[in-house]
Amino acid sequence: MREKKNKQINENIIEGRNAVLEAFRAGKPIDRLLVLKGCQDGPVCTIVREAKKRDTILQFVEKERLAQISETGRHQGVIAYTAAYEYASVEDMLNLAEKRGEDPFLILLDGIEDPHNLGAIIRTANLAGAHGVIIPKRRAAGLTAVVAKTSAGALNYTPVAKVTNLVKTMEELKKKGFWFVCADMEGESMYRLNLTGPMGLVIGNEGEGAGRLVKEACDFTAGIPMKGEIDSLNASVAAGVLAYEIVRQRLWQNMSE
Amino acid sequence: MREKKNKQINENIIEGRNAVLEAFRAGKPIDRLLVLKGCQDGPVCTIVREAKKRDTILQFVEKERLAQISETGRHQGVIAYTAAYEYASVEDMLNLAEKRGEDPFLILLDGIEDPHNLGAIIRTANLAGAHGVIIPKRRAAGLTAVVAKTSAGALNYTPVAKVTNLVKTMEELKKKGFWFVCADMEGESMYRLNLTGPMGLVIGNEGEGAGRLVKEACDFTAGIPMKGEIDSLNASVAAGVLAYEIVRQRLWQNMSE
Repeated sequence: MREKKNKQINENIIEGRNAVLEAFRAGKPIDRLLVLKGCQDGPVCTIVREAKKRDTILQFVEKERLAQISETGRHQGVIAYTAAYEYASVEDMLNLAEKRGEDPFLILLDGIEDPHNLGAIIRTANLAGAHGVIIPKRRAAGLTAVVAKTSAGALNYTPVAKVTNLVKTMEELKKKGFWFVCADMEGESMYRLNLTGPMGLVIGNEGEGAGRLVKEACDFTAGIPMKGEIDSLNASVAAGVLAYEIVRQRLWQNMSE
Repeated sequence: MREKKNKQINENIIEGRNAVLEAFRAGKPIDRLLVLKGCQDGPVCTIVREAKKRDTILQFVEKERLAQISETGRHQGVIAYTAAYEYASVEDMLNLAEKRGEDPFLILLDGIEDPHNLGAIIRTANLAGAHGVIIPKRRAAGLTAVVAKTSAGALNYTPVAKVTNLVKTMEELKKKGFWFVCADMEGESMYRLNLTGPMGLVIGNEGEGAGRLVKEACDFTAGIPMKGEIDSLNASVAAGVLAYEIVRQRLWQNMSE
């Protein structure tokens, strides 16, 4: 009973061949598809084809795994995890910035795994006036019900996009005049950086920080001054402190204009 | 099994008359004592007396409640929740500030209930160079194992004190030259306030903010500029943003001296 409840809170799952195929065809946002290993049935192959067409994360698993996740016991070899919310596109975010007449401000998350952190960061993005949050397809929390709840409603307003390759997205945005700053406890003090203009703030994974390639794609790294004995802030707190340094610099720039 | 595991992660409990009495007599930090309602046995009365002497939170509960919490099934009418860490005194914090030759900087939490928030705030306090965190005895998360884990080691360095009456503690600190600033989304913009000097930053409860009396005891309220549609940041993020505004102002003050 307790198990079941946890599952319902954590994820939205769809199981059974018809239900899953229908979800794909209706264009429902699907984060991940689990398929019974070795299954070569026609209907299952059709589902796998649909998943590949949409670039959905695909995992072939043992039947014990499916049985464990299944809530109805009738998964028929396929279980899909749907997102609690629709994903937006990066284009939507740029349009939002243009509509508001503001320099675009995006937050990019390289592998945030804790849904509570993801929700808190979307909440911060909304209040700090960021135009969107970009997350990668792999090795990251998706928009589950926990994220929606922790975001305190921000998911209804702040667009979240899921991209296949974070570095590629950054390269494209650089052509549009973006600068990228990576949170790094050992970076240059954020107070000494110019964080105005079209800006992407990159926050890395809770344990390991941002990946090497993502870090290299950034224009600079921003450190939060540390006076204590431990070595890093909680990821959503660090995102909040840096996002508000961007807010502060923008406010002061507007005042001095 | 799952239940049991959750319990062990969340709290340290001591059950049974001898074990609880011993814990009290050894001076172990006890957050809360549960006693079987209506129980008038000599040993139980002795325990209740010890608890009152130490001003421990006391709750008289039905035997079903005790049975539910008990891990051994042999609670004998008493279960104590111990703190995972020792509490410090406010005096310790003032001494720490003096030792470092810094203006004291304390963070006061008026009713933070989520242990993850408490842990994240202690982590922030450590890195922002605060000299301690003060929490009230009632209606607040104590130093459980979850808090210790979420603090990422900061609990080993940053003192945490538990006080009976937050307002009284504030009044005493005011006599020592402290100023208190209360986080309030509708307060004056934090960028327009002078947050240097001996400072207590007050963060309220996740849902309701700080209590009326605590708010009234503050010298000013500080707002974080909000550009979005929702109405507040996560409590630990708000604490981080405000703590770092204090850090920034102190840094700039030192530079201009």
